[in-house]
This record gives sequence, C-alpha cells and structure tokens, in this order.
Amino acid sequence: MIKNLTNVRGIQCWGAHIGIKSMRRDLAIIYSEVPASAACTFTQNRVVAEPVKISREHMKGGKAQAIVCNAGNANACTGEQGRRGAEAMVEAMAESLGIEKEWVLVASTGLIGEPFPTEEVVKGIKENVSKLSNDSKAGSFAANAILTTDTFAKEGFLDFKLGDTTINIAGIAKGSGMIHPNMATMLSFIVSDIAIEPKVLQKAVKKSVDRSFNVITVDGDTSTNDMVAVLCNGLAGNKPIESVKDERYPLFQQKLEEMMIHLAKLIVSDGEGSSKFIEYKVTGAPDESTARQLVRAISDSSLVKTAMFGRDPNWGRIICAGGNAGVPFDYTTVDLFLGDNDTLVQVLEKGRPAEFDRNKVKRLLRESHLRVLLNMNGGEGESVGWGTDLTTDYVLFNSVYTT
Amino acid sequence: MIKNLTNVRGIQCWGAHIGIKSMRRDLAIIYSEVPASAACTFTQNRVVAEPVKISREHMKGGKAQAIVCNAGNANACTGEQGRRGAEAMVEAMAESLGIEKEWVLVASTGLIGEPFPTEEVVKGIKENVSKLSNDSKAGSFAANAILTTDTFAKEGFLDFKLGDTTINIAGIAKGSGMIHPNMATMLSFIVSDIAIEPKVLQKAVKKSVDRSFNVITVDGDTSTNDMVAVLCNGLAGNKPIESVKDERYPLFQQKLEEMMIHLAKLIVSDGEGSSKFIEYKVTGAPDESTARQLVRAISDSSLVKTAMFGRDPNWGRIICAGGNAGVPFDYTTVDLFLGDNDTLVQVLEKGRPAEFDRNKVKRLLRESHLRVLLNMNGGEGESVGWGTDLTTDYVLFNSVYTT
Repeated sequence: MIKNLTNVRGIQCWGAHIGIKSMRRDLAIIYSEVPASAACTFTQNRVVAEPVKISREHMKGGKAQAIVCNAGNANACTGEQGRRGAEAMVEAMAESLGIEKEWVLVASTGLIGEPFPTEEVVKGIKENVSKLSNDSKAGSFAANAILTTDTFAKEGFLDFKLGDTTINIAGIAKGSGMIHPNMATMLSFIVSDIAIEPKVLQKAVKKSVDRSFNVITVDGDTSTNDMVAVLCNGLAGNKPIESVKDERYPLFQQKLEEMMIHLAKLIVSDGEGSSKFIEYKVTGAPDESTARQLVRAISDSSLVKTAMFGRDPNWGRIICAGGNAGVPFDYTTVDLFLGDNDTLVQVLEKGRPAEFDRNKVKRLLRESHLRVLLNMNGGEGESVGWGTDLTTDYVLFNSVYTT
Repeated sequence: MIKNLTNVRGIQCWGAHIGIKSMRRDLAIIYSEVPASAACTFTQNRVVAEPVKISREHMKGGKAQAIVCNAGNANACTGEQGRRGAEAMVEAMAESLGIEKEWVLVASTGLIGEPFPTEEVVKGIKENVSKLSNDSKAGSFAANAILTTDTFAKEGFLDFKLGDTTINIAGIAKGSGMIHPNMATMLSFIVSDIAIEPKVLQKAVKKSVDRSFNVITVDGDTSTNDMVAVLCNGLAGNKPIESVKDERYPLFQQKLEEMMIHLAKLIVSDGEGSSKFIEYKVTGAPDESTARQLVRAISDSSLVKTAMFGRDPNWGRIICAGGNAGVPFDYTTVDLFLGDNDTLVQVLEKGRPAEFDRNKVKRLLRESHLRVLLNMNGGEGESVGWGTDLTTDYVLFNSVYTT
C-alpha cells in the first residue's frame, strides 16, 4: 500500500471528475481537520491567473485549512468573469466545510484565456466535499485530479523522527506537459503534521523551493499559474518550531527540501518530448546563488539541450552558456565533467581540453540519465539542478497541436 | 554592378582563402586610407574571445584604421596561446600596413576551444595586405571571408545628402549559422566616409545597435565573439559632427540605423533550420526600453516560436511570454494582431479574445514572412524586432552534427 497525502495526520483528500476535462479527474480537494500554518511561493510571471491572486491575498495571514484545484481551465487572462469564478470556488469551499474563506487556497491549471466554467466547478465542489477521506486512495485521486498533459501522477511521502515525535510530510505535483498549447504549468501541494510557526515555515519553503522547483527547467517559460503551497497542521504534537535558530529547524528544512526535490525530479522526468533526464551540478562557486544561476543558464540553453539530444560532448556550448549566466565566470579555472549515472569523464581541465576518449563519452551520452559537473575551483558554493534535452518531438508536440 | 564597402571613399578590402576552412575564403581585411573615428559594441558574454579583448582595449582611443577577421577558428577559450595569436594578427597588420598597432581591430569566428592557427593566419595577412583594393569585387571577397555556416554573404550600401555632401555608408555581417556546434556568432563591420567625432559616433552606434542587432533573435544565445565595429574616416569632407545636438546628427544616426537593420534582417533570414521570418512590434508602451524588452522576451520564447512553426494563432503563449519579460505588463490593456506581410488580424482586444476567423489566421500563418503586433495602449514607447520560428530542423542541425 502506498503512503501519500492522507498518511499525514488530519489530512483528508478527494479527487473527482466534474466534466471540465473529458474522462479524467479534474477537481482536487485537500483538507486539514485543523487550521494549519501555511506558506506559498507563486509565479513570477507578470500575467497572474485569477486563483493565484486570491491565494496570494489569503496567504497574508499565514494560515490555511483547505486547498481546491481544478484542471482543464487555467482561469488566466479571464478578467472579471474569471475573478468571480475563483471567488465562487473559495465561497463554495468555505461554506461546505464551515471554515473561514481566508483559509482556503485556490488554484487552477489548464487552458489560458477560456471562459471559466464557474457553475460546473462550484457544483463539483459542493458535491464532493462530503467525500473527503483519509483513505490513501483518496490521496491518489487528488494527485491525479491536478494533472493536465502529465503522463503520470506525482506523489511523495516521507517521515522522520523529531526528538520522540514522528513527523510526516507528503506532497503531490503536476508538471509542464508541454504538448498542449496554452497549458499552465507547475503546481505542488505539500502537507505535514509538524507544528511550526508560519514565518519560520515561509523561510523553509523559500530555501527548499530555490533548491528544487527553481532549479528545474523544461522549456524556460514560467507560467501564469505556478504555485507551491505547504500546509503544516501541528497534529504531530511536537513543541512548535518558532525560530530558524531552533536546533530542530535544519532537519525539518532538509526533509522538506528532500520532498520538493523528489517532486521536482518527477516533473522533469515527465517533460514530454524529452528523451533525457540531465543533472547539472556546479561546485567551487563563490556562493550558492552564483552556482544556481550557472545551473539555470546552462540547463536552459537551447544549444546545450540540443547537444545533449545529439549525444555530443560539446563543452564549448556549456562554457558559452555559463558566460551568459550574468555572474562572474572565468572559464580558465573550470573543470568540466560529462557522463551518465555511473561514470563521469573529465573533458576540461582548468579551461583546457582534457585528454579523453571522445567515443567513450559519446557512448555514455546515449544513456537516458546524464550528468554535467562543472567545478569553478573558486569557493565553497554549489548548486544542483535538473533538466531535459531539446528534441524534435518537443518542437512537433508544441507546433502541430494547434488550438 | 553592386555597391559595397569599397564604394566608401578611402576604403580598401580583401578576402582570401588561407586554409583554415576548406575551400572557402577565411581571411577578411578592411583598410581605411586615413585613420578613422571608430566605435564598437562587444559581446555581453562573460566568456570573451581573445581578439575581442584586444579590440576592446584598442577602442579606448576612439580611432582605428584597419580591421582583420579570420573565419574557421573563434580564438575563444584558447588561453595564452590564443592571446598571442590575436596579438600576432595585430602586429602583422600594423607592420604590413605601416600603421599603429592600436589602430587595428581584430576579430575571429568559428570553432571555440581549438588551438589558434597563428602561423597560417600571420602568413595569410602578410601575403594578402598587398592585394587590398577598392574594386567592389574585393568588397565582396571580404563579405564572404567572414562567413562560417551562413548560406549567403550579407552586404549593404547606402548614400544620402548631408547638406551639399554625399555621405556613403556600407557594411557587411555574418550571422549565427546554428548548424555547426561551437560556432561563434555575430559580426558586423560598417564603414562610412562621414567626418564625426568618436564620442558622438559611439552614441549613434549604441542607439542603432539597440534598434537592430539587439532586437534580433535566433536561439537566444550570445556568443563569445559578437562584435559590431563602425569606422568613419571623414573623407567625405563634411564639417565634422562634434555633438549629438548638431542638427545633422539625427539624419546620420537614422541612416546608420537603417544600415544596421538591413544587415540584422539578413542575419535572421539566414537563421538555419528556420522556416519563417517574423517581425515583432510592440507599441503603446510607457517607453522604448519597455517595448524592447517585450519584443525580446516574446521573440525568444520557445513556445511562441514553436507555435509560429505550427501556424498556430496561439495568443496565450504570446501574453505569457510578455508576462515573463521582467517589465510591468497588464494584459487587460493589450490589443494583439497576427498576420503576414499584407494582412493583420486582431485576435485580442483589451485582453479579451476578439471575434476572428481562426481558419483565415491559420492560412495567413502559412506565409514565410509573419508579423506580430502588440499594442499596450499605455504610452508612446515602441520597438520592433525580428526573429525566426523554432523548427524540427533546428533541433536536428544542432544535435546530429557532432563535433
């Protein structure tokens, strides 16, 4: 039996088919039996979907008790009609559950710019709140109900000891399917039963997102609907963590990060049209932020991604992309390694081509799981991120499917 | 008979095959019979090719008399050996021509990270300086000798009246071929016989580059070797332009911009693997810089580019890319038009889908020359730029051709 959202104390879920999408579940509800500390990160796109605006507002109090998400319609670029639709979702949830409106987070994913089907969604909420359950099947229903073009549901569960208390963390995510035009992108909902203050939670979420969802790339676009929400309801009964200086904080942050990395990697694995999963690691940077910018610039470069598709140990493209990262970058200090999951081969040594067997590296690059390691030899900062290759299938999927 | 570089007073050229590339000309020399006011813009990539470093240094004086450029080897990521190679090119030019070393600009384009063939290039310079000529054939030789994977030479010539004086401007350029891995990218050399102070010229160059080479995109990568150089030798005999407040300045700036736009569009037309030439125009922005950032973000988006390849009137992707431009962007004020060279169809009206014949638009998008017009309805700022679509051929060219 798998463990998922519903194995966190006090968490109930449901996922239903309410008819926005044909045949697939398209409404997810996550409910905590008690109000929870909550923290979110939202899309940086200037065009922001209506539910994101409302959730951002509701997060100001640092508390939430329920999440509702529909798939199939992004409720983005929908103006006044969309705003009223998102508000109606919140009202239906608050009324059906008997909780504060401000404690409801709302999300949508799907087509941009289509009128929002408010009536169906509100009806769907009212009909399905009563089905909320802590059966793990209900957790899987929720995980499936937030998908769009994803080819599999993305779930995770972990537990750890905090002193004498067992803490549970579980999460679900959806990725950027990329096949379908106008598809809004990345969502993740994570719950835990740890007791923690909202402000401390927010810091843990920020740090963990920077090291997980913020270092994955499929096609470099940030959608109007991206959102990560974390609810911690305290039902584990631990003494609340009230400061980042609490000695228990680092362990929790690390476990939260572990969950987010797990979900982020699943998203990359499901990058449609991609043929490879690539881990990019930068070490020896002056600081973590510099390393992260390099990871992002290199993993986002179309020329690097096509080289990976073509199994080409093309270090020049990697160095060139590093030079475009907007951070100081001296290639003459760089050691660069390429390889698969098991073997790394050094191709650059302090900026000079190393002696290596080109045919061996090309054979390694045939694998579906690749690694790129760049050591700047200039400090202790490091960062790791994940991306895909750029394939002919990506272009076809994103071009021949016309709206 | 075509007019080109050699039709500018006092300009001599040559382009030779010296054996770096097989079969094609690979060494270009441009020489002004008198020292010229000079202004350049260089790559923003942190990894900078050796010739770029030297030219940047030489530009501090604002004067130049000759340009030398080899193709086939970018002299980038070549360290000490490459630096000495670029210095040797400068020395060979200065000695052969009997001019100051500081008045030589040097450039390279080709493979990154290969040892620089200093001996061949120096020998080539010494053998070919004597062939410098003001015959237009020699101008064409130079235009061809800077190419790498370009499929045609890019040249331009224009003249205009400044008071009673005829001023000539001519230029050549090479683009990002994109087929070949590690290929360093964009070069343009422009000459004029106008008399103008270096500081004023620098301002005209900056403004013109921002409106031409800085608003074209093929794959979003900035190479280690990008460089635009403009030499104005004063042989037209006009009273020198010594200030941007000179009433003759705007006309010259506009003509220089016209030349750069001509060359920039030729580069986009030669984006290998692309099937469409697309003009992006943003109007009604608070200022020109905001409009330019929107043009760049939209024309650079992989999702927009694949939609263009797929003839998909996918306004959601354009709006989403606009939201990622890093400037204030309120889609509810936006009018958006799509079409070909002759016809534009409105698809968004103040952020709401307009009534339009989707099949008609899809037919228009079959054309090879497309237009995207986005009116923000929020000011007088506007910008226009040019890009390509993203095609399966682009991916194939950049992946199957392995180094």
